Amino acid sequence: MAKAHSSAPAKERIALSIEYAGKKFSGSQYQNNARTVQLELEKAVSTLVRQSTKVILSGRTDSGVHAQGQIAHFDVENCDSDLWRLVWALNGILPADVSVKAAQRVSCEFHARHSALERRYVYRILNRAQRSALLKDSHYFYPHRLDQKRMAKAAAYLLGDHDFASFRSSNSDRGTSRCRVSEAKILNLGEGRLEFWIAANHFVYNMVRIIVGTLIEIGNGERVPEDMSRALKGSDRNLAGPTAPAWGLTLASVKYPEAFHLFSDLNDKACLED
Amino acid sequence: MAKAHSSAPAKERIALSIEYAGKKFSGSQYQNNARTVQLELEKAVSTLVRQSTKVILSGRTDSGVHAQGQIAHFDVENCDSDLWRLVWALNGILPADVSVKAAQRVSCEFHARHSALERRYVYRILNRAQRSALLKDSHYFYPHRLDQKRMAKAAAYLLGDHDFASFRSSNSDRGTSRCRVSEAKILNLGEGRLEFWIAANHFVYNMVRIIVGTLIEIGNGERVPEDMSRALKGSDRNLAGPTAPAWGLTLASVKYPEAFHLFSDLNDKACLED
Repeated sequence: MAKAHSSAPAKERIALSIEYAGKKFSGSQYQNNARTVQLELEKAVSTLVRQSTKVILSGRTDSGVHAQGQIAHFDVENCDSDLWRLVWALNGILPADVSVKAAQRVSCEFHARHSALERRYVYRILNRAQRSALLKDSHYFYPHRLDQKRMAKAAAYLLGDHDFASFRSSNSDRGTSRCRVSEAKILNLGEGRLEFWIAANHFVYNMVRIIVGTLIEIGNGERVPEDMSRALKGSDRNLAGPTAPAWGLTLASVKYPEAFHLFSDLNDKACLED
Repeated sequence: MAKAHSSAPAKERIALSIEYAGKKFSGSQYQNNARTVQLELEKAVSTLVRQSTKVILSGRTDSGVHAQGQIAHFDVENCDSDLWRLVWALNGILPADVSVKAAQRVSCEFHARHSALERRYVYRILNRAQRSALLKDSHYFYPHRLDQKRMAKAAAYLLGDHDFASFRSSNSDRGTSRCRVSEAKILNLGEGRLEFWIAANHFVYNMVRIIVGTLIEIGNGERVPEDMSRALKGSDRNLAGPTAPAWGLTLASVKYPEAFHLFSDLNDKACLED
């Protein structure tokens, strides 16, 4: 009797670096009857690898939230294709508001969500008297004067290890609300454009948008900078400000253990060679 | 017999600083049966001042071209309204892709087009291997490697007084093609984002886009930097490169004689005061 084929088909794990414009998506994660980033990626990947393929994202982003450096992974059997061609093909069939910057073979220990060490977000505010035709989809337009020094002082309280229970949407997830914040700063890019950058090992639901809502009430004088510290200590949603709109928020990047060498050679392939 | 009302109604000239996203406009200037920036402005201004009002722009921008600092003016009789309120009302009724940054009363000697001393444009290129979901409407995606030093060397030839006949669309306007270029530089903003800035007293039709098409062919090695100089000397459209796409181009600002004090106090009103 001939020996049966012994092993299962070789399985490979592929990581993707992704951008999307949140405006026309009902968020990132799969939902029934909704256009989500995950759904579009799964359709495109499944078409190209000719296998029904599940795509895992590093984390959920809400409806309207953008991403510059979202990370995803999927598993595929016998993926013999050049990943460079795969990325080109993905960008050919994905809709215009989602794109793949790069793909990389990773160890099967890598998991886009579970391996993530830190996520970094930027929230963009347009702080001038009149709305902008050019920045409307990427910036929250806030016409009242904001005192950037007060906001920076308040943001500094966020650094370190805190319970962010006050900054979690009340109708939301169980699980720890302790987060370690490694970066929290306000940048002024001129002409009314403010950016709030925050990086942490973990974010609770709507955390960045509620922090920004609080920072705005501190910047406009409704609250004092010390209110940020009180909210951190109080574990009460009522101690924090309102939830700022989704369209100002962008997931900027996700950090993984260096051992995975994730997209470390991205710069070498920054352009096509002829 | 009572003295008749002697004088015509007082006429005032109002200048506007305008932004627009070019994507859904058939250019800036009025055309029959087309959606133009001028048409939208005239509809909005006429509604608010309750007079049919003609709006003059500093110059024409093509279909798809954006503006950050387009300048316009219109005349109105007995405009007793607070201009601050007028701007708010304009932004309330204008469509989302056009906005007014500020309005100012100006002398009747001011003319948005004829008084302009210099216009400044920026052309944005995304020079990386893969397209971007986020920058697609504001950047021309060019995936082949561009040598920025070669482009900068070529751009330097543009400075000064030259005949730009080689950089004028062949099916276009009569009139002088001599232009005095006061700025021509390449900026690298990182992550593949390049900007080409150019300021001149005069631009011929499609001049910036043809210069950029030439710069790209110099950056990718198809041409040498000295080809820019040859094209300037030759007065032949065939000596320059192709016309780069409209959506990378933005009219950044327009300069007027200082005597008009145009929007010189804009910073004082950068935000609303409560």
